[in-house]
Amino acid sequence: MSELVRDIGEFALIDRLAKRLHPPAIDVIAGIGDDVAVIAFGGFRDAGCPYLLATCDVQVAGVHFLPGRITPYQLGCKVAAINLSDIAAMGGRPRHFLVSLAMPPDTPVAYLEALYDGLSEEARRHGADVVGGNMSRASSLTIDLTLLGEVMPDHLLRRSGAQAGDLLLVTGALGTSAAGLALVIDPELKATAEDRERCLQAHLTPTPRLAESAVIVREGGATAMIDISDGLMADLGHICEASGTGAELWEEAIPLLDATRRVAEAAGTDPLQWALSGGEDYELLFTARPDRAETLARNVTDSTGTPVTIIGAIRPPSDGHRLRHRDGSQLPLHAAGWDHFAR
Amino acid sequence: MSELVRDIGEFALIDRLAKRLHPPAIDVIAGIGDDVAVIAFGGFRDAGCPYLLATCDVQVAGVHFLPGRITPYQLGCKVAAINLSDIAAMGGRPRHFLVSLAMPPDTPVAYLEALYDGLSEEARRHGADVVGGNMSRASSLTIDLTLLGEVMPDHLLRRSGAQAGDLLLVTGALGTSAAGLALVIDPELKATAEDRERCLQAHLTPTPRLAESAVIVREGGATAMIDISDGLMADLGHICEASGTGAELWEEAIPLLDATRRVAEAAGTDPLQWALSGGEDYELLFTARPDRAETLARNVTDSTGTPVTIIGAIRPPSDGHRLRHRDGSQLPLHAAGWDHFAR
Repeated sequence: MSELVRDIGEFALIDRLAKRLHPPAIDVIAGIGDDVAVIAFGGFRDAGCPYLLATCDVQVAGVHFLPGRITPYQLGCKVAAINLSDIAAMGGRPRHFLVSLAMPPDTPVAYLEALYDGLSEEARRHGADVVGGNMSRASSLTIDLTLLGEVMPDHLLRRSGAQAGDLLLVTGALGTSAAGLALVIDPELKATAEDRERCLQAHLTPTPRLAESAVIVREGGATAMIDISDGLMADLGHICEASGTGAELWEEAIPLLDATRRVAEAAGTDPLQWALSGGEDYELLFTARPDRAETLARNVTDSTGTPVTIIGAIRPPSDGHRLRHRDGSQLPLHAAGWDHFAR
Repeated sequence: MSELVRDIGEFALIDRLAKRLHPPAIDVIAGIGDDVAVIAFGGFRDAGCPYLLATCDVQVAGVHFLPGRITPYQLGCKVAAINLSDIAAMGGRPRHFLVSLAMPPDTPVAYLEALYDGLSEEARRHGADVVGGNMSRASSLTIDLTLLGEVMPDHLLRRSGAQAGDLLLVTGALGTSAAGLALVIDPELKATAEDRERCLQAHLTPTPRLAESAVIVREGGATAMIDISDGLMADLGHICEASGTGAELWEEAIPLLDATRRVAEAAGTDPLQWALSGGEDYELLFTARPDRAETLARNVTDSTGTPVTIIGAIRPPSDGHRLRHRDGSQLPLHAAGWDHFAR
């Protein structure tokens, strides 16, 4: 009979709903289609005036997290980090959180206090604060954060700036969060204490790459950026769609921790699949002019200690999306990342 | 054993959680404690630069609305209006919405499209647009809106500016939304078609008082303002608490529609109780210097057609809160407005 959300999936739904909207005002630099809205707040006054950034993300108990498997303090850190990562992806600085909290009336106050401690601490670590919010009742704990930030107009990086020939770079390692999730779901999975801690930390308390983002925009040469929340394939797909390009990934270049490989082996999974479609790594995926990419990668690492790896290249749209193996063989990439409504 | 949210209630919970937070940055003019955060975005540049306003409000199916008793188009209008009303209460202009939508996967796409139509239309009516958002899965439809707005620094009205001697004013009529809610809950309640439509409209598609707010701040003389979402008693309590004052309400002056009186009679309820603690009227409650109040009220009505009534006075804190009857008798007012976690 009537079409349901699960029939069309998250991204088609966003497209369908965006079409219903009236066009935004002239001061909206980026609206629906980026993770973060960009606004010339107060009008286009002068070049020294930052743009306003605004993003929101909701986390629902039982959907995005299992309350028994993450402490409320960790949960507070994580919900903050998810939004902070979106601001990092635009080249911006986070400033102010609004917290909308809906919960069952039998939620312990101490649980919420610990959640707020994590949230407030993670915000402070990155120069942000909490300035308001809203409390309400719901059947499941639901945490919806709005984060306001700022970015200088010449530092703004969007999904849409990539060009064929640009190289593709990523901070840190991929698939670690998926390995952590595997350990959350099956605590009996064999892993050393160190591997377990490393992977759980990536999943439960990811680090938003704000310091790395600041170096990237200061150095220049980057052309597009996104944070990896849906998975490498899906988020690369977002860049290619917005930029009108194809892309290739170099299989052997994709950075994986040894800890991730060992947990994958224990779980009987291919760790590359975790890197490609696991999601929630909150690393920065960005493109750069080929003559600037290596220097840029080195400068980010020198300033922050975070490794940066060149993992592929942007191609003309006719090339599609592919995964290239060292021996020359190629596979088409399917954007099989996270869809909130997929079966 | 451990203290639960329902044991301490919404307002004590907000206080408890606010205490956990690090102090906000210097550019935060108003943070937790007002309905809307006020930020000197981009720093204190010049007097011609507006402050940024940011507010959020969540509506959960089964808690805030009954999906079968409000059309999705009406629901879209209402969730927008609730946030628009908060911006009106600060003397501001609404600008940009972010929409965070969480829903079961079996939600019909057409339902969400109609919801977006209402939201977009209500936003456009008041000069705002939708610039971003977020989709997710949840067991109940949950709509969390963030609204950004702006206010010129000399137009900003907060809860905290009332002084003993100021008069208390309200736009429109009170209790109409509660009458509408009574009709939603019991559709068999006897009422004329006209009364029914009037009260349902107030409850299902309230009108944010932005035009009235614009006249109030332009004319000057107002000292504090809030919108009536929790009920007259509770919201007057918020003004008094923030301003450090007492207050008296003049029973016979409280504006009630005849439609509300007739529906209350059919329901066997005192319509004054609906006006005092029904909530969701989204009228503006404001205070003004006694020598300015009458002119201000007249100018708002002349410009907008909306009646404005003087319903009481701000008193010294030692006078507490009371309801004064024409015959001179007085009753203490209990702030028995809406608490999201009350039994």
